[in-house]
This record gives sequence, C-alpha cells and structure tokens, in this order.
Amino acid sequence: MKTLLNEPALAAVLAALKRTAPVDTETVPLDQAPGRVLGAAFVCPEDLPAFDRSLMDGYAVQAASILGATCESPVCLKLDDAVPMGGRAGVAVGPGRAAPIATGGALPRGADAVVRIEHTEAPGGGVINVHRSVAAGCHMVKRGEDFQAGGQVIFPGQRLRAQEIGLLAAVGVTAVTVYKRARVGIVSTGDELVPATETPRHGRVRDANAHSLAALVNEAGGVAVSYGIVPDDADALYACCCRALCETDMVLISGGSSVGARDHTAGVMARLPDGCMLAHGLPVRPGKPTLLATAGGKPVWGLPGHALAALVMFTVMVRLFLDRRNGIVLEKARRWPLAARMCRRVPSVRGRIDFVRVRLEQQGENLLAEPVSGASGLINSLVKADGLVVIGTECDAIETGAAVTVVPV
Amino acid sequence: MKTLLNEPALAAVLAALKRTAPVDTETVPLDQAPGRVLGAAFVCPEDLPAFDRSLMDGYAVQAASILGATCESPVCLKLDDAVPMGGRAGVAVGPGRAAPIATGGALPRGADAVVRIEHTEAPGGGVINVHRSVAAGCHMVKRGEDFQAGGQVIFPGQRLRAQEIGLLAAVGVTAVTVYKRARVGIVSTGDELVPATETPRHGRVRDANAHSLAALVNEAGGVAVSYGIVPDDADALYACCCRALCETDMVLISGGSSVGARDHTAGVMARLPDGCMLAHGLPVRPGKPTLLATAGGKPVWGLPGHALAALVMFTVMVRLFLDRRNGIVLEKARRWPLAARMCRRVPSVRGRIDFVRVRLEQQGENLLAEPVSGASGLINSLVKADGLVVIGTECDAIETGAAVTVVPV
Repeated sequence: MKTLLNEPALAAVLAALKRTAPVDTETVPLDQAPGRVLGAAFVCPEDLPAFDRSLMDGYAVQAASILGATCESPVCLKLDDAVPMGGRAGVAVGPGRAAPIATGGALPRGADAVVRIEHTEAPGGGVINVHRSVAAGCHMVKRGEDFQAGGQVIFPGQRLRAQEIGLLAAVGVTAVTVYKRARVGIVSTGDELVPATETPRHGRVRDANAHSLAALVNEAGGVAVSYGIVPDDADALYACCCRALCETDMVLISGGSSVGARDHTAGVMARLPDGCMLAHGLPVRPGKPTLLATAGGKPVWGLPGHALAALVMFTVMVRLFLDRRNGIVLEKARRWPLAARMCRRVPSVRGRIDFVRVRLEQQGENLLAEPVSGASGLINSLVKADGLVVIGTECDAIETGAAVTVVPV
Repeated sequence: MKTLLNEPALAAVLAALKRTAPVDTETVPLDQAPGRVLGAAFVCPEDLPAFDRSLMDGYAVQAASILGATCESPVCLKLDDAVPMGGRAGVAVGPGRAAPIATGGALPRGADAVVRIEHTEAPGGGVINVHRSVAAGCHMVKRGEDFQAGGQVIFPGQRLRAQEIGLLAAVGVTAVTVYKRARVGIVSTGDELVPATETPRHGRVRDANAHSLAALVNEAGGVAVSYGIVPDDADALYACCCRALCETDMVLISGGSSVGARDHTAGVMARLPDGCMLAHGLPVRPGKPTLLATAGGKPVWGLPGHALAALVMFTVMVRLFLDRRNGIVLEKARRWPLAARMCRRVPSVRGRIDFVRVRLEQQGENLLAEPVSGASGLINSLVKADGLVVIGTECDAIETGAAVTVVPV
C-alpha cells in the first residue's frame, strides 16, 4: 500500500494521510479489547511468571547434588514432601534432597533445577535414584523470564491479538486503554437511489454502496453510521454532511455518478466548515471521479457512485485513513504483501494507476493471479475476485509470469 | 494448512476434521450478514441492472444514426427531452434523434448506444453534431449484464464480503440465510489457576488461556462461552464438560499441564457421553500433550496449559474445526499462503512437526522470516512473532534462505 501512495500522482492523498490523526482513547474491559488498538504505553506491572516454575514433571533439586549422575552411577537423593500444585513447598530443598514437583509447580527455596521423572527411579523408602545430571536452571523458567515488571512489550498503535490479551490477563490487567473506534458517516446521494428495502421503479436503483461501505468500515474496526439517501440537492447534501461531520470522525459521500452530480458534491465538499479540497479526480481506474477534502481535520471522501469503483477506492485508500483514525501505526499494521505470478498479460496506460481484479489459485506453495475476465467494471468482477493488483503510472503492462503483489478484497 | 494435516502423523486429526459438520443455519438482516457464511443456495432474484443503463454522460442514440460520423463530417441529430435521472424517458429514441442522458440513466426505448458528450457539440436550435460513431451497446450496460435473474454467483460455505453484501442489497435481498456462529465452550482446569481479576498467592497463576482462546474463537467468527475454572477433580471436570457439550458446538479444555492432570483430563474426555478419543498426544512442538476426542459429533480438545502451546494449537488445528462448524467450505476460505525467505537456519527433528515463531520484515516486495530469538516456549515469543513456519516430519532443518510459508498469528 505504501508503494501505491508513493506515486507522485497521489501526493495530495499521501499528505492528507500523514495529517490524519487518531481519535480519542477510552478504557474497555479486557474481554472487549481483542482487535482493538492499544492507546497508551503499557508497562508490565509485575514479573511473569511471578515465581520460578517447573517446566516438567519431576523433582526440584540443587543441581550440585546430582553432578556426575549417570545410569551406571546414579545419585541417591532423599525425598521431601511433594510441592503442592498452586501452593508453596513446606521446606527448602537442601543438598542431597529432592522435592516431587509437577509441571507448572513453584520451585521450593533452595532448588535451582528440575530433574525429569524419566531420569529417575523410585525404589521406595523415601529416596530416589537420579540417572542424569542437570545444569542449574534446567527444566524451569525463572521469575520474570517471560516478561519483566517495568518492561514494555506492547506499544500504542498496535492491534491487540490473542497473545497480547493473554499477556494482559496473566499480569492481572483487566481494563485496557485503547483508541476509540472511529465513527464513519456514510451518505448516499442521487435522485435515482432507493433503499434496499424498496422495489425501485424504472430508472431507479437500490442503494447498494451504503451497505457495502458499512461492511468495509465495520470489518476494519470502525463504526459505520448511516445517513441514508440525500436527493441531488446541494443544500440538503450540505446539511447532511455537516451533521455527519459533527457526529463522526470521517465522512464518505457515495453516489452522484453524473458529471453534474459530481460537481455538485465537490461544491458541497469545498464549502464545508473549515474545509479544504485536496483531490478532485485521481489518475486511477476504476475510481477516477474520487474526491477528497478535509473539514476541521476530518477526511471527507466523495466516492464514485459506481459500486466497483467505490469498493476499490475504499480498499486501496480510504481504509488507510480509517486505520489512522483508529490509531493504528501503519508501519506496525502487520499487513504483508501477498506474492503471486500473473498468468496473463494485462495492458495498462502510462500515467494512470490501474487496479486489476484477479482471482487467485494456489499451485503448490505458489499463487497464480488470473485477471477476472469480462471485467466490464460491474460489481460481478469483485464478487469473482480474490484481490487487486496495482499497475503503477510508470508501467504500460504487466507481462505474463510477472511477480505481482495482491491486495486481498 | 492443508499440507500440515496431510502429515501421516496427523491422520486422525484430518479424519476428525472431515467428519466435523456445520451447525444449523439462521436468517439474519442484511446488515448483520457481513463476515457470516452463506447457509443456503442463493439464486439471484432479478436482473442487475434492471434496465439498460448509461455508463457516460452524453446522448442516447441509435448507433445506426451516427454511422461514419467524424470531426470532418459530423452527423446532426435532433434532440429529444433529457432522460430524467431516476426516471423514464417520455418518448422512444428514433433514427436521427438523441436524448441527453447522464451516467446511470435508463436508456430510452429505441436507443442502443450512448455517445459521450465530449464527442459532440451543441450549436443550439434543438440539435447536436456528433463527431464520432459508436457501435451498438457502446458506453452502456445491458439489463442483466452484471447479474442475471436465476444465476448463482454466491455459494453456501462462502464468507460474505462487502461486494457480496452490495450485490444482495442491489437485488433487494434484506434477509440472508447464514450458518449460525458456532458456540465454543472454554473450560480451564487446574488447582493452580485463579481468575485474571484476582491476585494469585504464591504458586498460583492467573488463567490467561481462557482470555486468549476466547479472543481467537470470536475473531474466527465463533462465539466463545466461558465455563470458568474447574479444580483438578475428575467429577467436577466431567460435569462441567457435559454442561459445555450440551450448550455449545465444540469444547476446549485448557490446562492440566502435569502428566497427572493430563491423564485426568484424558480420562474425562474418554468417558464423555457418546465419546471417542481420537488423539492422545501429537508429534508436534509446541503442543505435544494435545488431546482430541469427539462426543456426540462435537469436537472436544484438551489443549496444553502452556499458553504458547495452546495458542499455536488453536491457530494450526482447532481453527480449522471451528471454520467447519461455522459452515466454511475450507477450499473456498480464501486463505492464501504468505511466502517468505528464512533468514537463519532452524534445526528440527525428523518425525516431529515444529512450529517456529517468526518475525516478518518486508524488504521491497519480499518478506524475510526471522526466527524469534530466545524462543524458550514462553508467551513472549508469540507477542514478538508475526507468524509460524511449519517444519514437517520429513525435514530435519530449514536452511538459511529457504522459501517458507508463514501462518499469520
């Protein structure tokens, strides 16, 4: 994605992205934290584990007691009481002594290693014979070896995965400061649109984009807020956008497919309070009529009414702005390039960025990217597709067999 | 993933996966459908678009009217009234006539093509001059060209993405049959465990796995149901598992790290109603003590108490069972191999499957996989890691520079 916005033709978009700030933070219970973005520095409050712990079923010993033990010349140790699971041993382990301990048990004072039960035999009579020596620290984990009190291991801007949640639970953190989910207002505009619940009369179409865009926003960790359908009326659109700007952190206006309607949307975007028009059309296909403004520091997008173009633009551009609003540090977003080979030549035009819909097929360890045929710019090409391949402005074709990076859709 | 379960050593796990059936279906409103798995055949109820539509701002014409038009010898057409956006043209377009139309407008009867406004001039007087000829069908999309009534384009077992949601909205489907989210019972067992909200006394630890596993279950589209902590008592564990089996679709028992506790968990799993033990330990690292049974057709896992091992086992195995329970057709799961190069040699042991934690670094278009150092089997190696590399049973090392597939974590 970085490479896409590094295109000089998209410099205004990249500059706007860099100025886009995260929304506020809030504190949520641990069970609501998975998938959220850490919003404050996290300092580990205690050592993990909190005590020296056995990694094996066996005996806690002093390593020096069994120095040189072998099958041929075992060392005999006197048995102490077993370490109770979840408890503390009654006595310290001294030289020549061993305390039975289970995996996860707390090492008794005095002990500095664990000998595995498999390397011992118990003839009875309160003793065991040990057949192997161990180094100090063997088969145990020391207090603080996993995480140390005061250590910083998770950073603001990182999405909390299951392992981070496990760490937080393990050290007793049951409330977490995370970035608020960015609220994204979705405004549909166009006299031809009716809600999906209605049967359109001839010449009208159901508003599909509002549903698709809401799905993309929510999947990306935002909160989609629908503002319904606004007719092709500048004052009505202006009023709706102002309300959406007040109530949300980013606004998507979708629709207005005709040149007149686009100009009309652009006019409204340009005069929003504290507004600034940043892009009025982009050299991309699909998505050419895309508009970008900011108003009071909040991004406002004029997306094409065309469903394919709107979804592609969200995936390759709007999503990055939403990630920033959600507090994600893009460098830490763990979004990895998916490598494939193009199985057919795709021509393009220099000076334009093309987003080619491809179907992926796995061949052994490799992926083949096959351009979706009949990609006439209808939404069916995205239903058939698994991803997008970007052809940059400097390139006039992707050749058969070329290595490409695929953006999943 | 397929390659992993194709390991002969995991044949019992693969057989169990194949026998794992999806849960029931339910009908949800469209706005709750994103990310859900389609649960019934979907037949497109109407043509999309429902009428011939213009793709450009321009004029609806009969292509035959402007045959041979060029800049030098333009063709003059008489203007009809403009096609109202979202409405129907008053009259059919006849030979030698043109009706102004905007992008998205419904082509009037008689018209079979659109000529772009850029290829015309309007001298006034109710006529336009056209400078270019177009073929029939040009700059328009025909009724049903995106999707045809009766067509099947989304299939049961597919996760519904934004584009599928858009298609459903566009054809007026506002309620969708999807598979129910599988409910997954999470049981923690061990005398040493306390809830994350408590301060453990010496020798006890907080139950982190329940939180991590719940995060993984929910992220995968399941519904985690917590059954709390059960002490090391066979009857209590049996009772809790029976309740979880009644109320959920799959059960994860986590904990019991000692050999005794594992045997005890295995004993409980083996005598569950209509139960069958399938795997008692697996040749994997981490995750060796993993247990798998089915009871009444529901998978029951005994996961290691060790946090790292539990999370790895979920990611590489349990997740596939959850996907199946959720109705996902694994061949259509769009899970693509992430290709990287190993930047350091990692030794392994033949006959064992190793899961190596790696950090990923992007270098240009390529990914480098660096084994997480100090991977002593503590959870910190997963916090530092971006993914897992699987070393199969037939392999005794991965060499520096080897191409590997990474499973994201």
